[in-house]
Amino acid sequence: MDLLILNALAVVGSEVLPLDIAIQKGKICALGHDLQAYQEGAQRVIDAQKRIVTPGGVDIHAHLSYFVGGRHTADTFASGTQAALFGGTTTVMDFVEAAEEESLTQALERRRREAQDLVCCDYSLHMSILPHDLGKLAEIPELVKGGCPTFKHYTAYSFSLDDGQLYRSFQAIAKAQGMAVVHAENWPLIRELIRQHLEAQELAPRYHALSRPAEAEAEAVERVLELARLAQMKIYLFHQGCSQALPLIERARRRGQTVYAETCPHYLALDDSYLESMGPLVVCSPPLRPASHHRPLIKALEEGTLDSVSSDHCPFSRREKEEAPNFAQTPGGLASIETRMTLIKDLPHMSLPRWVEVCATRPAQLVGLPHKGQLLPGFDADLVVWSHEPYTISAATLHEKVDWTPYEGRQVSSRPQIVISRGEVVISENQYFGQLGRGRYLNRRLK
Amino acid sequence: MDLLILNALAVVGSEVLPLDIAIQKGKICALGHDLQAYQEGAQRVIDAQKRIVTPGGVDIHAHLSYFVGGRHTADTFASGTQAALFGGTTTVMDFVEAAEEESLTQALERRRREAQDLVCCDYSLHMSILPHDLGKLAEIPELVKGGCPTFKHYTAYSFSLDDGQLYRSFQAIAKAQGMAVVHAENWPLIRELIRQHLEAQELAPRYHALSRPAEAEAEAVERVLELARLAQMKIYLFHQGCSQALPLIERARRRGQTVYAETCPHYLALDDSYLESMGPLVVCSPPLRPASHHRPLIKALEEGTLDSVSSDHCPFSRREKEEAPNFAQTPGGLASIETRMTLIKDLPHMSLPRWVEVCATRPAQLVGLPHKGQLLPGFDADLVVWSHEPYTISAATLHEKVDWTPYEGRQVSSRPQIVISRGEVVISENQYFGQLGRGRYLNRRLK
Amino acid sequence: MDLLILNALAVVGSEVLPLDIAIQKGKICALGHDLQAYQEGAQRVIDAQKRIVTPGGVDIHAHLSYFVGGRHTADTFASGTQAALFGGTTTVMDFVEAAEEESLTQALERRRREAQDLVCCDYSLHMSILPHDLGKLAEIPELVKGGCPTFKHYTAYSFSLDDGQLYRSFQAIAKAQGMAVVHAENWPLIRELIRQHLEAQELAPRYHALSRPAEAEAEAVERVLELARLAQMKIYLFHQGCSQALPLIERARRRGQTVYAETCPHYLALDDSYLESMGPLVVCSPPLRPASHHRPLIKALEEGTLDSVSSDHCPFSRREKEEAPNFAQTPGGLASIETRMTLIKDLPHMSLPRWVEVCATRPAQLVGLPHKGQLLPGFDADLVVWSHEPYTISAATLHEKVDWTPYEGRQVSSRPQIVISRGEVVISENQYFGQLGRGRYLNRRLK
Amino acid sequence: MDLLILNALAVVGSEVLPLDIAIQKGKICALGHDLQAYQEGAQRVIDAQKRIVTPGGVDIHAHLSYFVGGRHTADTFASGTQAALFGGTTTVMDFVEAAEEESLTQALERRRREAQDLVCCDYSLHMSILPHDLGKLAEIPELVKGGCPTFKHYTAYSFSLDDGQLYRSFQAIAKAQGMAVVHAENWPLIRELIRQHLEAQELAPRYHALSRPAEAEAEAVERVLELARLAQMKIYLFHQGCSQALPLIERARRRGQTVYAETCPHYLALDDSYLESMGPLVVCSPPLRPASHHRPLIKALEEGTLDSVSSDHCPFSRREKEEAPNFAQTPGGLASIETRMTLIKDLPHMSLPRWVEVCATRPAQLVGLPHKGQLLPGFDADLVVWSHEPYTISAATLHEKVDWTPYEGRQVSSRPQIVISRGEVVISENQYFGQLGRGRYLNRRLK
Repeated sequence: MDLLILNALAVVGSEVLPLDIAIQKGKICALGHDLQAYQEGAQRVIDAQKRIVTPGGVDIHAHLSYFVGGRHTADTFASGTQAALFGGTTTVMDFVEAAEEESLTQALERRRREAQDLVCCDYSLHMSILPHDLGKLAEIPELVKGGCPTFKHYTAYSFSLDDGQLYRSFQAIAKAQGMAVVHAENWPLIRELIRQHLEAQELAPRYHALSRPAEAEAEAVERVLELARLAQMKIYLFHQGCSQALPLIERARRRGQTVYAETCPHYLALDDSYLESMGPLVVCSPPLRPASHHRPLIKALEEGTLDSVSSDHCPFSRREKEEAPNFAQTPGGLASIETRMTLIKDLPHMSLPRWVEVCATRPAQLVGLPHKGQLLPGFDADLVVWSHEPYTISAATLHEKVDWTPYEGRQVSSRPQIVISRGEVVISENQYFGQLGRGRYLNRRLK
Repeated sequence: MDLLILNALAVVGSEVLPLDIAIQKGKICALGHDLQAYQEGAQRVIDAQKRIVTPGGVDIHAHLSYFVGGRHTADTFASGTQAALFGGTTTVMDFVEAAEEESLTQALERRRREAQDLVCCDYSLHMSILPHDLGKLAEIPELVKGGCPTFKHYTAYSFSLDDGQLYRSFQAIAKAQGMAVVHAENWPLIRELIRQHLEAQELAPRYHALSRPAEAEAEAVERVLELARLAQMKIYLFHQGCSQALPLIERARRRGQTVYAETCPHYLALDDSYLESMGPLVVCSPPLRPASHHRPLIKALEEGTLDSVSSDHCPFSRREKEEAPNFAQTPGGLASIETRMTLIKDLPHMSLPRWVEVCATRPAQLVGLPHKGQLLPGFDADLVVWSHEPYTISAATLHEKVDWTPYEGRQVSSRPQIVISRGEVVISENQYFGQLGRGRYLNRRLK
Repeated sequence: MDLLILNALAVVGSEVLPLDIAIQKGKICALGHDLQAYQEGAQRVIDAQKRIVTPGGVDIHAHLSYFVGGRHTADTFASGTQAALFGGTTTVMDFVEAAEEESLTQALERRRREAQDLVCCDYSLHMSILPHDLGKLAEIPELVKGGCPTFKHYTAYSFSLDDGQLYRSFQAIAKAQGMAVVHAENWPLIRELIRQHLEAQELAPRYHALSRPAEAEAEAVERVLELARLAQMKIYLFHQGCSQALPLIERARRRGQTVYAETCPHYLALDDSYLESMGPLVVCSPPLRPASHHRPLIKALEEGTLDSVSSDHCPFSRREKEEAPNFAQTPGGLASIETRMTLIKDLPHMSLPRWVEVCATRPAQLVGLPHKGQLLPGFDADLVVWSHEPYTISAATLHEKVDWTPYEGRQVSSRPQIVISRGEVVISENQYFGQLGRGRYLNRRLK
Repeated sequence: MDLLILNALAVVGSEVLPLDIAIQKGKICALGHDLQAYQEGAQRVIDAQKRIVTPGGVDIHAHLSYFVGGRHTADTFASGTQAALFGGTTTVMDFVEAAEEESLTQALERRRREAQDLVCCDYSLHMSILPHDLGKLAEIPELVKGGCPTFKHYTAYSFSLDDGQLYRSFQAIAKAQGMAVVHAENWPLIRELIRQHLEAQELAPRYHALSRPAEAEAEAVERVLELARLAQMKIYLFHQGCSQALPLIERARRRGQTVYAETCPHYLALDDSYLESMGPLVVCSPPLRPASHHRPLIKALEEGTLDSVSSDHCPFSRREKEEAPNFAQTPGGLASIETRMTLIKDLPHMSLPRWVEVCATRPAQLVGLPHKGQLLPGFDADLVVWSHEPYTISAATLHEKVDWTPYEGRQVSSRPQIVISRGEVVISENQYFGQLGRGRYLNRRLK
């Protein structure tokens, strides 16, 4: 045995149990009481002292080393995956975007090469389908079989697909038994609203939210669900942040569709008043909504209408955010790859098992990672021992490579004290002990 | 008194009453029993002999003298309005489409000039808003005030507006207290489906329906309703032909929107099996649906979810329909300007008062024609005396200028025997007795 | 011609039209312009001077000469029908309750005899089905054929029917093509809540409302609708006063049931705060609800979810109301047989045509009175000329025989100036000119 | 260590894992790979040979040693709990009914005494609230605290509570933080339908179903949910067998209520055609429904609208069933305490983890049994090793003490080979090795 964790208060399925955990060759090999009997052979023993122990978080929506709109996001594969580990997340998913002349397969290979010497935790990649990729749909079956079964679609931004293109891509993916993951907003409507606000010299950050109303988000969700139904496609909706979309998701399920949906920490912990108080810093898309959305979203997360929480980590520096001449040119995105787990843990009514489910178990299951996200024999030994002490979030102590956080000064009940990735203690005493590039690329297979 | 109709069985509001009807200066001046006392002064007396007498039909959706896709529709203003009168319709609405360089007002004037020497019944015009008209929205308030308060929008065909353009136009019209009338289908999706069918060499007429599925229609209805809600716009939905749209209309009303909707005779009396039996002839958009849609549509018409029935008259000759190389190039549209009233009269469960309401009263009210569509003192004396005898529909005896009808051989319970337009007997003994150009252009004002 | 009304602004169907109205032998014989030509023969001419003229109101739910709970309601057939006429209502419906040993037919005859020398306006009667009448259901077909096709059922009070009894009665009525009219509240639940409040010495009038919560009303509505569905019975719901019932009514219609529903003036014009300010006086069942119910109820009346407005006139004197030792023994019921029409006229968003529809046209149609409730040739000449001047409601000037009104001091925009019943001017100059017993019993036939 | 199970294919939470399981002092003490290291100390080792191993089933709705309608149910505490064990169920819940003069606490004590020397598996008891118990509601807080927090209510049969009584009981239970469990059917309606059928000499078993229509079940479910809402009571609905109830349950949850619901094997595996083929044998209440209900019920079980599956085990002998003169006197109830687990395992789309969840995990959680229903360290060592071989159900080989089974001849994929209760191998080689009375009474505590 390589590692033995004694006296854990472990979150296993729907239960929180006093347990010892034995680890061998990077896998959990036993759970039980009094595993000291195993101790002899153990190379290392950690006494959890009745602390909460969870599986490592699985964040299936993050943007690292991403070049967009003429700027690089603040975090690279190296800094971003380290920050993830410091926050208790041991698996991260990012995206591949093929260049026009590149095949999807080539792009995947390239992106893996870009990541491989940098990543500190295990990772995988969603394949993006941009308008210039519609001629490459024939590659999809091979990608699905090869371990990349999820495909990102945008209905917003200049690189959005129109409904016919979406449908065409959905058909190809459905046929290959993959899954579409979708950013849903009504771009033509938003573009017009942006135009109107800019024309009226309404340039302040609050117009960002006004130009992307909840109706424009809910409408796109409904439309995407209809297209998915028509294509007999299972679908995962990214970053749901408005209450109007929730009954649409429920209705689609009642009529028999397979629909999954995530939200992000900022839609639960921030609101549109931050667009006044923090200005351009908190510009992100979909935008922050009024605080009245929090309760229904949190209830939806509690009850299962929402399946999971991802970070949509996509930070830009304070300077880059603040120097933009208007809301429409402000680079969008917020950081939470490191704070996601702690923020969700502290939501009202959030039980420990449901917390682990939405931050680790469900995301792993939904994207096809059968050995991640649970604390059971046979799963990868990705584990987090959580502190008993509260912690005050600050950009100064976070490891995300961005010089501000919207959660500055917020006190959370706990933070990771020890983080174990495939049996290796990578975080301890607030230091990272792993190698750069130790993270492994994960082939995936949908259930 | 100019004209006295004795012994009518008149449809007045929700009632069918034995009545005499007195007419003076083109208006109904009295209803009552024993109006023979008036008879002395009457220039003309008609004994209706207990026949059904209704207000003349109001058809607010027809395409006459229309040049589209390189072809002229079969009916001109002259032939189309005569056919309308033969069918018991005394008011017709057509459309204006401005050329790129033309102002909307100029186009309206031009279109009125094209019509004025030809029209045989009273008429009015909806203004179309095409993509090249978005720079002309400033004209809208003047048009509304000037009597043209309804604006046609397409979400399908190459000249469709995108959601941002729709919203922009809706805003302008809402501000001017006009109303949008909309053809709702999801064009990008349909375009892709057409492409797929053509690519697969699936060229037969049935692929027309398969390339425009009900989902593509319902989705567009929902989207248009959302945009109308956002723009606080009242809206009239054209040619609803699929049952999926009905709950969407009801839901929009429940949430407080003002939504009106029409269907057309062909969605109630024909079905997609005609695409097999009659082939390209019955290509129209939205397409004919399976017969299972009939019952819910007829129920919706009976109960008020649907407000009205228009013809969407847009015929092309047998040759033009049949010579097209594939469904996508077949000119779309069916004739029913003459058969509309009789076809609707014979629907199952259709009462006489509801028939008049959906074919005359409501359409007149909804588009702002306060003197049309009812048989009451002060209203225009547009009246129809209906035969007691059944009639077999045939292209040979119809007056529509097209060499076929999808209703060939169908027996209906009645047809117009005498048609009166503004007090003038224009149809009698199956002949037209009016002048060309006797019809008047109607300025309209929404309630 | 017996009577000619010139220069009316007449409410006819959906229109308000400047008209003359000619009357002969108690019927409307003509509507039109310039009916002065008829004037020669007219025995009497009234110049309406552009005042609003409507059909007389039809109040299909009133309790006159009613002995209940050991007390007589304040109004007799004489005083109540006179008050109705003063308020512009020319047709009233009351109830028959058979004694245990009496047949339904005998009871109807007896009740007609009680009324015949007293009634001042035309009237008809609903037959009540009490628990002791379940052995008499065989009489129902004869009653329906004989002109009494509507049957009252209670789900509340000691004389309520249980669900099995309701169903049995519904079956019998459905088979005879009659209609059930229903008072729906959950009596076992209310009885328990009353018990709890009395036990806790909570005796004040506000506990009346708390012991009959909206849930107890909505639940009973839903249950009655289910029973009606099972019995394939059309149903008319009395006195809907809580917003929770509205979606239940809509849902029942959507699933194909024929459901009609009324509300009463007090549910639109009073609220539960009156239970504090006026105390036991405003005890009625179902009870007054919070003011938040007003808007949805008024909207439902505007849009058709609610069909009609009745008075449920059932007044008791101030002394009788106030001397009761607790809310449960307070005699329930309010007066509005005289104020109903004016109160509804002044509701927000109420158009003149809709006002007439809900207070006269629809109630007449729904209970089977084909000659009442519309201003059209052939209908009974029941007409009201409304004053231009506002009027302040006061018990001192009302003709209802009760010494208080909940609407004391309320200003309304108009009141009846002339009231005509079957061609006879019965109210004019604020006096009643008719005979006692001039009202006729109306046989009814459902459509 | 007392017992070691090697090479299990264990159902743990959402996973099916190859595992060894170590057991000590009646509890599971470890799960893991290669637990042979523990083997030395183990008193007994079982090699599961890759067979499925699950936690023992938890059947929270069974009637043993029950005297009703003048008859005893076929199974006693002894035979019933043995049959349960043979079927893989290791925990059973039955009911207490107090006599009129008995306190609830006394009744519980008495019932426990009746059971204690007979029960072969662990068990607990729901307390019934009959009409004569309404004066005993003050005992409820003590019962809840003492480990009996669930209370059975009937809305059907002569001993049903009316809505006021239900509400009163619900209030008392809600206040004590207990939970109501409810049999919901509309008794007054059913009683009337029974009367009608008997009167019409319609005595055959199929009239049993016709006298208890789905509407009578759905209506009662809706009403009970409304009463629970009013009393702010969490509720568990017994034996849901009709699809109409499913949307009502979902709606109650959407409006914020805590509602749980079970179904039973016979509502998924039998249908009303059995009332023709097997006659009175399959009379049970609620009755068997048409097969069209199966799909929605199974889907609801799959997706969570239904939480659990109980047996409602209540068998009578063939003679007792068949000798009754009509459907209304036929003793109702079916046997499935032994077949429940296997029947549910074989439902279409049923995964192993969901099977265990609905038959063991959820029922244990919902009624407050924190150590039952899961295969995790710290839980009671109630385990079942399932055979690889199919098995044909037959009354001849079942251990239920009733001489027929509705599932006669049905082949199922597996059956229990070894059953372990609190670490003791009680079933093996198709024999029971335990003592009579070895089962323990379980105090319960709701979450």
